[in-house]
Amino acid sequence: MSIDIITKIKLAKSASIPLASISGITKDNALDAMAKALDSSREKIISANRKDLEAAEKLVAAGKLSKSLAKRLKVDDIKIDEMIASIRDVIKFEDPVGKTLSALELDNGLELYQVSCPIGVIGVIFESRPDVVPQIMSLCLKSGNATIFKGGSEAAHSNRAIFHILVDAIENTDGMPQGAFALMETREEVNEMLKLDDYINLIIPRGSNEFVKYIQDNTRIPVLGHSSGICHVYVDSVADMEKALDVSYDSKVQYPAVCNAMETLLVHAGIASEFLPTIGKKYNASGVELRCDERSFNILKGMGFLKALIHATEEDWKTEYNDLILSIKIVDSIEDAIEHINKYGSHHTDAIITENKTTAGRFIDHVDSSSVMWNASTRFADGFRYGKGAEVGISTNKIHARGPVGMEGLLIYKYALLGNGHKVADYAGKTARKYTHKKLKSSLLEKMG
Amino acid sequence: MSIDIITKIKLAKSASIPLASISGITKDNALDAMAKALDSSREKIISANRKDLEAAEKLVAAGKLSKSLAKRLKVDDIKIDEMIASIRDVIKFEDPVGKTLSALELDNGLELYQVSCPIGVIGVIFESRPDVVPQIMSLCLKSGNATIFKGGSEAAHSNRAIFHILVDAIENTDGMPQGAFALMETREEVNEMLKLDDYINLIIPRGSNEFVKYIQDNTRIPVLGHSSGICHVYVDSVADMEKALDVSYDSKVQYPAVCNAMETLLVHAGIASEFLPTIGKKYNASGVELRCDERSFNILKGMGFLKALIHATEEDWKTEYNDLILSIKIVDSIEDAIEHINKYGSHHTDAIITENKTTAGRFIDHVDSSSVMWNASTRFADGFRYGKGAEVGISTNKIHARGPVGMEGLLIYKYALLGNGHKVADYAGKTARKYTHKKLKSSLLEKMG
Repeated sequence: MSIDIITKIKLAKSASIPLASISGITKDNALDAMAKALDSSREKIISANRKDLEAAEKLVAAGKLSKSLAKRLKVDDIKIDEMIASIRDVIKFEDPVGKTLSALELDNGLELYQVSCPIGVIGVIFESRPDVVPQIMSLCLKSGNATIFKGGSEAAHSNRAIFHILVDAIENTDGMPQGAFALMETREEVNEMLKLDDYINLIIPRGSNEFVKYIQDNTRIPVLGHSSGICHVYVDSVADMEKALDVSYDSKVQYPAVCNAMETLLVHAGIASEFLPTIGKKYNASGVELRCDERSFNILKGMGFLKALIHATEEDWKTEYNDLILSIKIVDSIEDAIEHINKYGSHHTDAIITENKTTAGRFIDHVDSSSVMWNASTRFADGFRYGKGAEVGISTNKIHARGPVGMEGLLIYKYALLGNGHKVADYAGKTARKYTHKKLKSSLLEKMG
Repeated sequence: MSIDIITKIKLAKSASIPLASISGITKDNALDAMAKALDSSREKIISANRKDLEAAEKLVAAGKLSKSLAKRLKVDDIKIDEMIASIRDVIKFEDPVGKTLSALELDNGLELYQVSCPIGVIGVIFESRPDVVPQIMSLCLKSGNATIFKGGSEAAHSNRAIFHILVDAIENTDGMPQGAFALMETREEVNEMLKLDDYINLIIPRGSNEFVKYIQDNTRIPVLGHSSGICHVYVDSVADMEKALDVSYDSKVQYPAVCNAMETLLVHAGIASEFLPTIGKKYNASGVELRCDERSFNILKGMGFLKALIHATEEDWKTEYNDLILSIKIVDSIEDAIEHINKYGSHHTDAIITENKTTAGRFIDHVDSSSVMWNASTRFADGFRYGKGAEVGISTNKIHARGPVGMEGLLIYKYALLGNGHKVADYAGKTARKYTHKKLKSSLLEKMG
């Protein structure tokens, strides 16, 4: 009989306390054991995965699962190699825990240290893809966070196999606590978890907009993520035509299914009749359906598009297509472009194409999004491209972590105050001692040895 | 007719966009105007305050308001001087907005800047004390955040007078947007605001536990704060007796009404019979009621306390007295102390008294609280004492900002990516370009001029 999810979560909470201050060497030993365990359990993983693939084939045949989703389920030797490589990458990261972020002398012998520490217990909920388990588990382990996982039911066999192989490797490593990582298998368990705000400190949901919105609406636990990616490219009146074409095309077509792909193209009226026919041809050749406001429709309609050119409605400005569909609007000024983006966008990623530095600066300052691009594709907004080594998620939150989030999103800090019997009463009244508030160069680690 | 709160909040949201990138000089000019306006409006403020004081006197006489709360309402010339001084302090702070936090070359001519920026629109809800308005308004202004205020109804006249004096000063300053600061006057308006998660980015509630809990339970907007302060002092077996007495006394008695005062004293069994009688005498002399577990009761009962010595119940370990009441428990080890604190505490501030560095290190690592003190009073956990210049609040959250929070809690960052027509397609496939991920020393300000 398996223990219930509340018990598992309470165990993870207990384990999170020793895990928070375990040495970097112990954590790297556990990561190394994880990588080796995956390597020596290839057959087990692939055979578990086969069960998921067989079930998926039936669902595809019954029209209940898309072919592309089924394809993402597949784990083969190459996928396992990638999982191992991603764990080995995390070993190379410096231990992010216990770093002194600031140190201040409050008075003689009274020293305040602000020190990085894990958040505690993280809930990670993701759809299908089994390779998320090793990726997130290694990041959570390195940052000292206990973690509760839930994967998509389509990948249940694969997730379970990979999870247990990794957890056995961790828990057999000298010095690692037991129970820090747990797996949820049912939707009911997820709903239980969402209520446990005394035990879970942060939820990271990765999946469809509806899925993330469901999580956000059903828990008091902070959620790191984004429910939609309505990204814009604005082509300014003094845009370089080649850059405008490259960025507008890449932002839409390079990979339309993802959150950082463009959904609405804004074009300055002064350049529209020059720019739109050219980019329109390129989009048409790639099968992009264009949904245009009145003015852009009038420019494009003579070009012989068929059903791929229609009128946009108000709803289009608020829609994330995640597909080869694009809404187009002509604006009369940079101000109009900024206003449209702040009103209809999802504060995710937006780009301006212009040769005017002042205009670009205005766009960067006034567009209220986590990533703002000047003459670069929206598709660059990504943890790996941003040099974070790994991506925990992309956040449109405006507290804690924003934009592409790497391991820094799994960390917080605590204050340690070292005194010598100091009491506040000595700093009150007429003969009060004064605080010195002098910056220190020492670290807590040096102090505590 | 006054405009409704939703209109005010939408205006503040619009104003937050230009406010986010206004120059440091303009903000300091506005702060200077605020200080001058308070100075020249003393009569107006004091006369508005008189109305609140008269109403409060009647409430006190009717037993509906405590004398101490009524006393905190009073604004006189000294209080106005303090308000002016606190604004002038904020002028001295460096502009926190637009700082380049990191800069990375992704490829030749493709540069990523992470830049500090305001959060957007902050909702500040506080009880009575009118001096919170200038303090928070100056911090929000300097950090570029639009702000919606709601003060206690007992201070309605004072708050309204001070608010309008300050806002007039801000809005008459060259370059400042209109409508960035708004005042709510009723509970209904607060409830309206709690629903507006599309417009408000962060709520900072300052007040009683019940009040903060009510806010947390009734909004999807992130809340920065803490609902309780159940702080502990643990006296270890190898504590220095003088330090133990000083810290235990100061943490409870110096100012018991506040969140960083100790509520439970944990004493190692090996030192209890030596330590407890001495500290018991000191507490008794100051009128502290002691609620003891069996073992500590047995040590203290012979000392002739009357009703000030009673048996503790399970409920006591979870209670924030905010008064001259203290629960006492004897523990057998540092592990028991840590377990008690993590189980019953509020993750706020906890102290250990010991001469053993290893034990202290264990306590600092394993106590899951925002501030952990070694041989120092819990009462030091405070923004001013921590050298932050001003305190926005104390947070027991484990994301964004933790412990005493200064202006850093009002800031987040955005990414600006500067390219030259760069597209992601060039980094995919066999002939793909590679990312350089080279750290840059330049700042966005230098780049954009």
